[in-house]
Amino acid sequence: MAPRRSGVILRGEMEETARLIESIKQLLGEGRDERLADLLEDAHPADVSLVIRELPPDDQVRLFRLLTPQHAGAVLAELDDPTLRELVGSLPEVEVSRVLDRMPPEQVVDVVEELPREQAEEILELMEEEKSEEVQELLEYTEGTAGRLMSPEFVAVREEATVAQAIEHIRKAASGEGAFYLYVVDDHDHLVGVVPLHRLLAADAATPIRAIRTDEVESVRVDTDQEEVARRVQHYNLIQIPVVDVNRRLLGTIGVDDVIDVIREEATEDIQRLGGVAGDETVLDPPRAVFIKRNLWRLINLGTAVLAASVIGLFESSIQALATLAVFMPIVASMGGIATTQTATIVVRGIALGDMSAAVLRRVLWKELWLGLTTGGANGLVIAVIAYIWKGHLLLSLILAVALVFNMVVAAVVGTLVPIALKTSRVDPAIASSVIITTFTDVFGFFSFLGLATLLIRFLL
Amino acid sequence: MAPRRSGVILRGEMEETARLIESIKQLLGEGRDERLADLLEDAHPADVSLVIRELPPDDQVRLFRLLTPQHAGAVLAELDDPTLRELVGSLPEVEVSRVLDRMPPEQVVDVVEELPREQAEEILELMEEEKSEEVQELLEYTEGTAGRLMSPEFVAVREEATVAQAIEHIRKAASGEGAFYLYVVDDHDHLVGVVPLHRLLAADAATPIRAIRTDEVESVRVDTDQEEVARRVQHYNLIQIPVVDVNRRLLGTIGVDDVIDVIREEATEDIQRLGGVAGDETVLDPPRAVFIKRNLWRLINLGTAVLAASVIGLFESSIQALATLAVFMPIVASMGGIATTQTATIVVRGIALGDMSAAVLRRVLWKELWLGLTTGGANGLVIAVIAYIWKGHLLLSLILAVALVFNMVVAAVVGTLVPIALKTSRVDPAIASSVIITTFTDVFGFFSFLGLATLLIRFLL
Repeated sequence: MAPRRSGVILRGEMEETARLIESIKQLLGEGRDERLADLLEDAHPADVSLVIRELPPDDQVRLFRLLTPQHAGAVLAELDDPTLRELVGSLPEVEVSRVLDRMPPEQVVDVVEELPREQAEEILELMEEEKSEEVQELLEYTEGTAGRLMSPEFVAVREEATVAQAIEHIRKAASGEGAFYLYVVDDHDHLVGVVPLHRLLAADAATPIRAIRTDEVESVRVDTDQEEVARRVQHYNLIQIPVVDVNRRLLGTIGVDDVIDVIREEATEDIQRLGGVAGDETVLDPPRAVFIKRNLWRLINLGTAVLAASVIGLFESSIQALATLAVFMPIVASMGGIATTQTATIVVRGIALGDMSAAVLRRVLWKELWLGLTTGGANGLVIAVIAYIWKGHLLLSLILAVALVFNMVVAAVVGTLVPIALKTSRVDPAIASSVIITTFTDVFGFFSFLGLATLLIRFLL
Repeated sequence: MAPRRSGVILRGEMEETARLIESIKQLLGEGRDERLADLLEDAHPADVSLVIRELPPDDQVRLFRLLTPQHAGAVLAELDDPTLRELVGSLPEVEVSRVLDRMPPEQVVDVVEELPREQAEEILELMEEEKSEEVQELLEYTEGTAGRLMSPEFVAVREEATVAQAIEHIRKAASGEGAFYLYVVDDHDHLVGVVPLHRLLAADAATPIRAIRTDEVESVRVDTDQEEVARRVQHYNLIQIPVVDVNRRLLGTIGVDDVIDVIREEATEDIQRLGGVAGDETVLDPPRAVFIKRNLWRLINLGTAVLAASVIGLFESSIQALATLAVFMPIVASMGGIATTQTATIVVRGIALGDMSAAVLRRVLWKELWLGLTTGGANGLVIAVIAYIWKGHLLLSLILAVALVFNMVVAAVVGTLVPIALKTSRVDPAIASSVIITTFTDVFGFFSFLGLATLLIRFLL
């Protein structure tokens, strides 16, 4: 069972999964479909979804058709978005609708929302009416809210029920497999309590549910942002959170597995935005699909680079007089760039993790200023010595060191305040990517170094 | 229950939590300790931990002493690391040990591993012998492995047991509160199956456990890396995963709440390393504590900046002859920087998410090359026009555009291959931060632009 890592398997996947993929590819190649169907039946849907991703479109369809209808639905629910669109695009709509009919509504939502609008509508049309309506109800909730994430299936009883009645109710419930809590509602379906199943097991059959329920239940409203749902589930260490409407009527539940997906999505978004990418790109997106988004940031960067160049342009005559200035000026800009990127990274992540309250802002700013001054001093000394040894120009070396310290202080202030300003303006602080904040340190870095040099130019020549 | 957001609350915390913090601060100020103790008793430990973080050290201790011993342990388990060290540092060791005595061993581990070595040893010495030994056993597992993460408490029965016996066993188990699964072991404690509690509820009292257990149980070995544990829990949508030794003997379980913490830690590490920070820094770390780590990357950056400067130094005479070169050269470097950062960000995150297998490497490289060429062409055209309008130098504008396209292609290759090379060398690909990869685009950018200009210098003057 140990996950031995092999140099070539980049995703650190389990050896078992890798072996499964190999076996399946071999059986596909040999056309042994019956043996393949047996193998697939025993495999976990999450593993089958990985296999499908690795196959060319024709084989994807062939493999998918070998799955039992129940299993096919589970596999569909596990596929990543580009592969899902590819596979569903190669299947007749009626075939897809038969598979979706057997899936829980919230998983159908996950599939349908990824498809092109027309195809989605046609598939919903072809599905069984009841299931299709359930799905369409869920689709009415805004994307990124608790309503869109929740499963409308749960097990709930009235508070007057006995433990025996509750157990009977759970036995009959279709959604038993995912149930770890029994919810308690009043006569108007308002959520009034919760009973973990192990407490039900430990209780006497005749005990009324009212006596063993916990009445303080953490819940979220149907319009709560999914990021807040994730924060709450994590903060209170929950494995499932009930979703209620404005009147606290129980509408559904969100499981921790969906919350994990949200946490990973949000982390991906932060990482990508900090790196100047849209936030939802995957390695396998077709290049044409991401051209606009990538190029947007590159064009913005072109604009900021031209701005920095125009600052240099102000001092062209100084550079003409002393070309060595051109050699050293990128060092000042580059050091400001790393410093402000470091600071902004810590602050943006601190905001996302909830560590960055208004109360601590001043402490963080002081920390960054202290670091800017001390590391600026240390680095300034090093670069002054290097520059002096290299060019033998004492004053120039000193100007370089002073400009570098200035720029490190600017970096500390910009790296701390820009993300916070964005957050208070309700903009994602992660867009304070290096493209934006390094503009400040580029411009200020060139300006301070070339400006100081120009002021003192007659002593430099 | 809706989380209305207010502009000043940076961490987007729930209003309730914010109100609780306010009430507590007020009661602390008024010295109404009895009322405060009542309020704290009803509050969730996770919320109390947030309150403690916001208080000055003296008030932290005062508040902590108002908690019941049981509650105090739960609060300690929820504190963030710097606050934990601060609070425990202000309390006598014997007082801390009494609180730890009442906590589950894996939570004691979380506390003790954050403390200075001497203090930790003293506290373990003062604890009840049995609990202390349990904790020390867990501490022997390497940090970052399943063993260090697991709880040694779980509910397990032999396969011959009946449902009635199993239920009786659960009732008696001390750790009932966190139980959602019943594990099945053979006579030598080998893990041979699992029964979700709801299935136990639905079964007949006389049924043998053997008849209702699932015998394919996902598990991890005690030495499995925590990142792999998280990947597996997420891949298979689990809420708890059993931990076994080399012989498949059941040793403990890891809950999804701990897995969520791992996922967030790993995301933080990736984000910070990409931003050129150590990976475990928080916004409130004392500046002296992070000086070395921050400065390390700044010094590395200083080295790479000097390298880039030395490339410019090669062409000093060209710049002397035509200072305009110095104005445009940072644009080529900067555009290469954004392009390679974008690419590396997508690739590093792709590796972390498991999307980046060897099979797709070629597709990703083509995608990035295509994007490099097309966006390079588009941006090159824009900058050539800008440069021509600005300086009226046609050949110079063309050189700028060509160097920019070259550099975008280099950016695509470096941004894709460097993280992958790091991964296959078992180094965290996230250290392919901009500091490292932009060195290539800086150096190549300056070299290609200034080199082309120098080759054609007689047509430029």
